Amino acid sequence: MSATAATPSDLEIARAANLRPIGEIAASAGIPEEAIEPYGRYKGKIDVAQLPPPDALGQVVLVSAISPTPAGEGKSTLTVGLADALARAGKRTMVAIREPSLGPVLGMKGGATGGGRSQILPMEDINLHFTGDFHAITSANNALCALIDNHIFQGNELGIDPRRITFRRVMDMNDRSLREIVVGLGGPAQGVPRQDGFDITVASEVMAVFCLASSPQDLTERLARITIGYTFDRRPVTVADLRAQGVMAMLLKDAIKPNLVQTIAGTPALVHGGPFANIAHGCNSVIATTTARRLAEVVVTEAGFGADLGAEKFVDIKARCADVAPSAVVLVATVRALKHHGGLPLDRLSEPDVAALEDGLPNLARHIATVRKFGLEPVVAVNRFVTDTEEELAAIVAWCRQAGVRAAVADVWARGGGDDGGDDLAQEVLAALAAPGACRQLYPLELPVEEKVRTIVREVYGGADVEFSEAARRQLAQIRENGWDALPVCMAKTQYSFSDNPSLLGAPEGFTVHVRELRARTGAGFIIAVTGTLMTMPGLPKDPGALRMGLDERGRPEGLF
Amino acid sequence: MSATAATPSDLEIARAANLRPIGEIAASAGIPEEAIEPYGRYKGKIDVAQLPPPDALGQVVLVSAISPTPAGEGKSTLTVGLADALARAGKRTMVAIREPSLGPVLGMKGGATGGGRSQILPMEDINLHFTGDFHAITSANNALCALIDNHIFQGNELGIDPRRITFRRVMDMNDRSLREIVVGLGGPAQGVPRQDGFDITVASEVMAVFCLASSPQDLTERLARITIGYTFDRRPVTVADLRAQGVMAMLLKDAIKPNLVQTIAGTPALVHGGPFANIAHGCNSVIATTTARRLAEVVVTEAGFGADLGAEKFVDIKARCADVAPSAVVLVATVRALKHHGGLPLDRLSEPDVAALEDGLPNLARHIATVRKFGLEPVVAVNRFVTDTEEELAAIVAWCRQAGVRAAVADVWARGGGDDGGDDLAQEVLAALAAPGACRQLYPLELPVEEKVRTIVREVYGGADVEFSEAARRQLAQIRENGWDALPVCMAKTQYSFSDNPSLLGAPEGFTVHVRELRARTGAGFIIAVTGTLMTMPGLPKDPGALRMGLDERGRPEGLF
Repeated sequence: MSATAATPSDLEIARAANLRPIGEIAASAGIPEEAIEPYGRYKGKIDVAQLPPPDALGQVVLVSAISPTPAGEGKSTLTVGLADALARAGKRTMVAIREPSLGPVLGMKGGATGGGRSQILPMEDINLHFTGDFHAITSANNALCALIDNHIFQGNELGIDPRRITFRRVMDMNDRSLREIVVGLGGPAQGVPRQDGFDITVASEVMAVFCLASSPQDLTERLARITIGYTFDRRPVTVADLRAQGVMAMLLKDAIKPNLVQTIAGTPALVHGGPFANIAHGCNSVIATTTARRLAEVVVTEAGFGADLGAEKFVDIKARCADVAPSAVVLVATVRALKHHGGLPLDRLSEPDVAALEDGLPNLARHIATVRKFGLEPVVAVNRFVTDTEEELAAIVAWCRQAGVRAAVADVWARGGGDDGGDDLAQEVLAALAAPGACRQLYPLELPVEEKVRTIVREVYGGADVEFSEAARRQLAQIRENGWDALPVCMAKTQYSFSDNPSLLGAPEGFTVHVRELRARTGAGFIIAVTGTLMTMPGLPKDPGALRMGLDERGRPEGLF
Repeated sequence: MSATAATPSDLEIARAANLRPIGEIAASAGIPEEAIEPYGRYKGKIDVAQLPPPDALGQVVLVSAISPTPAGEGKSTLTVGLADALARAGKRTMVAIREPSLGPVLGMKGGATGGGRSQILPMEDINLHFTGDFHAITSANNALCALIDNHIFQGNELGIDPRRITFRRVMDMNDRSLREIVVGLGGPAQGVPRQDGFDITVASEVMAVFCLASSPQDLTERLARITIGYTFDRRPVTVADLRAQGVMAMLLKDAIKPNLVQTIAGTPALVHGGPFANIAHGCNSVIATTTARRLAEVVVTEAGFGADLGAEKFVDIKARCADVAPSAVVLVATVRALKHHGGLPLDRLSEPDVAALEDGLPNLARHIATVRKFGLEPVVAVNRFVTDTEEELAAIVAWCRQAGVRAAVADVWARGGGDDGGDDLAQEVLAALAAPGACRQLYPLELPVEEKVRTIVREVYGGADVEFSEAARRQLAQIRENGWDALPVCMAKTQYSFSDNPSLLGAPEGFTVHVRELRARTGAGFIIAVTGTLMTMPGLPKDPGALRMGLDERGRPEGLF
């Protein structure tokens, strides 16, 4: 998907698109006028309470992928293009995906709204503030932090141990200087000094809660259950103890309404919420997905990273607390990424190399097996890049057919799903939806947390065993004591490998996964198992993209992509 | 204006109001459909570039006040009520006021959208996130901070002295723990440790720049001129040196468009920007005021604190860089506040006491004299409270008449300007507008900063002299060296007294004002003269209002006011 000089940029394509007023998009999706609140001309929030009762609920197509590589898979692009292709095939279709975070936009990643002919619009707005949801989540998170420190400052009735506060402040920014800080300096009038730090907003538990809440009421209840730290005698302190859930929910009252936008082809898209895919579950809000099911026959949604992380969490966390079980799973693969998994270095991925490609296929195979463990049949989507040869593309499809797996090449970046770029894939997906699997979770909640982790490592990652650190072992004991052992597990593992070593590409075997630490997220309702290093506040690169951004003479963003 | 048990709350009154769709309000204000971008049903942003050229520019009525007291003056309430009364008198009228800050809303102040029958709506939305302007300003401020620390981390080509960075991070929150912090801890990979701190967003220089910019282009240029600190060899470092003005302006591209809402009576109101009234100039954006002048015959706008601070800064800072000179100045006074200035303690202000009231009048007299020094004639608005007696009200009006000053009692809180609560005041204001003064600044820019401060202290405050601290004297020399001596001055002084001692009420004389420190705001374009202590990050009280806030069973905010 890398553009050549003659190829228009994503931003140029987006600006050439003919945007329809959001009221028209809403009407086309069956959203009555009283249920849509416009935010500018091309964005709207849906007041779910004003929607008519649904006749039936749409089927969910979950877009997942092979293990990602720096070569890129174009999962969001494919999600958008597939939805356009399904709409073109006559299905009432809706996209449901995450909102982008501002931090990476200013760093170097650019936007997260698809690419080429398969984008959601207006991409400048979606990538910059959008309807303010992340700012509201930041405010709710930081209001809680201010209330925690104020509680301690004003006498600390609850006996909160300032050294054991686990809830951190957040900012939607890449700002490494805020990772480790000391607050409350300046003397007795300025607070109580303690170690603290900022995470990026997408890493906030408030974000995870926001995305798993099934209603505003459930949101308030989940917020109340967040553990913010421990007392001097080691009892957990919750948001409810501080009586802060009300104000937090109030700050989220508009944010919790799903955002409606459109694809270049005019397919309605709900873009809502965006939790990290490592220390959280990495998919858009439950409210957006269930709202889309009420409105469309088919909902195309996306999970972060590869199927080992994204699809596993979608099934074991999100689909456990909401009626969003997928009827089909699309696994996005690319020629370039498979060649990298097959051992070809990054600087040689443009060379045709069917042998390297075939050496990379075991990575795809293991993800296929994972999807089947969830009771579902995968559809492999080969996302075409300009450097791919026909022979390479055919090799993947042929291998899939041999393995009894549906597969199709999609050219949604260059040709768009609204044109014929996604027709073949749409037909395969429709065939899969006609005989949907019965989604099942990988493990029962009764299993101890330790065994849940072991099950995921063995069944999904293909690993041999799990090793828990000293600290993790202590934390497992505390989890049992605090009554949190029945929560599902959220794995924080590198996305690049099935193992916890990012350089082990392909389909490694026999490895041990090292769990360094466990973190209880009692509001979101999962236990994070941290393997390897975990970055919850990114930094800016030496030459940040931000320095090339600005407004053109017409006041439009430039340098953004 | 304190409500009795039988009186409906501000929130109850606001909810009982019959809100008109924002498109109707826009049409009534002469805003063409293509120039209004809706944000929900009752808020909109105006794309100023889409407005037709104006036939004439409306007259500006500046609402200022006597020195504020804890008894409250109801200046915003009066501003809204006066605009409604002028509209009722047949004038095409528009309100232009500041946006509220979230921090104080969560603390204890409640909202800042007027009160009683004189409110702007929808008050819950305006007080909570509104259209996201303050979040955008926070992002632009903190993106700059991330770029500063990243520049140092990545090699510090500019030679920025980490101990001399003057630009701080901001958050729209009352959070005392963030006043003094250390960032960049955790080792070489996490940044360079340094002292830092957070201000509340309204104290950001980006907010001041935002509110003084006359266009998006001017915004970018002013951002570029912000001084963020000094090099190891003490040269100023600007945003332009870091090449950060483009991304900051981009983050503000929507925020810079003025927000349109309505009063309870349906008068169009522009609510936009909200800089601190101490370390900044304390009034809504230049763009909102000039936009309102293009659309209305009369623009009713407000300046922070009393006329010594708010009106002086309006004339000497805002009206110097934009065509917004007032044609009339309304001075809001109340019986209760004048009695307090006259020596009556706060717990006895409900007792009728004409003698104390008369003892307080010198405070009003000095503000009247100030307004006249700007070449303008004041109109005294006595804002009626429920505890006022007819005798007290009459005493103020009689005194004003004797002094040759227009005056009227306004009952806009209880009766509303849309009914007859502001009719008398409207007539006095219209009479003043029929013979408008010629607004002039108090001092020429060529005067050295030191003399500018002295002029304000002597001419406006009635003080004897100014004493500059050692540090302030050094800073004056640096200001001259850096070529900043021709900037106007922004006084950071207590609002409670003409002097720098908040307990000297009434109209003290012979006092010396102590300037502790000078801060250069080269983007906003003024030099702050700091007297007394300066709080740029408020804290939460022992029992924050936030703990009583939440959503009711219909998902509406409760406990907010």
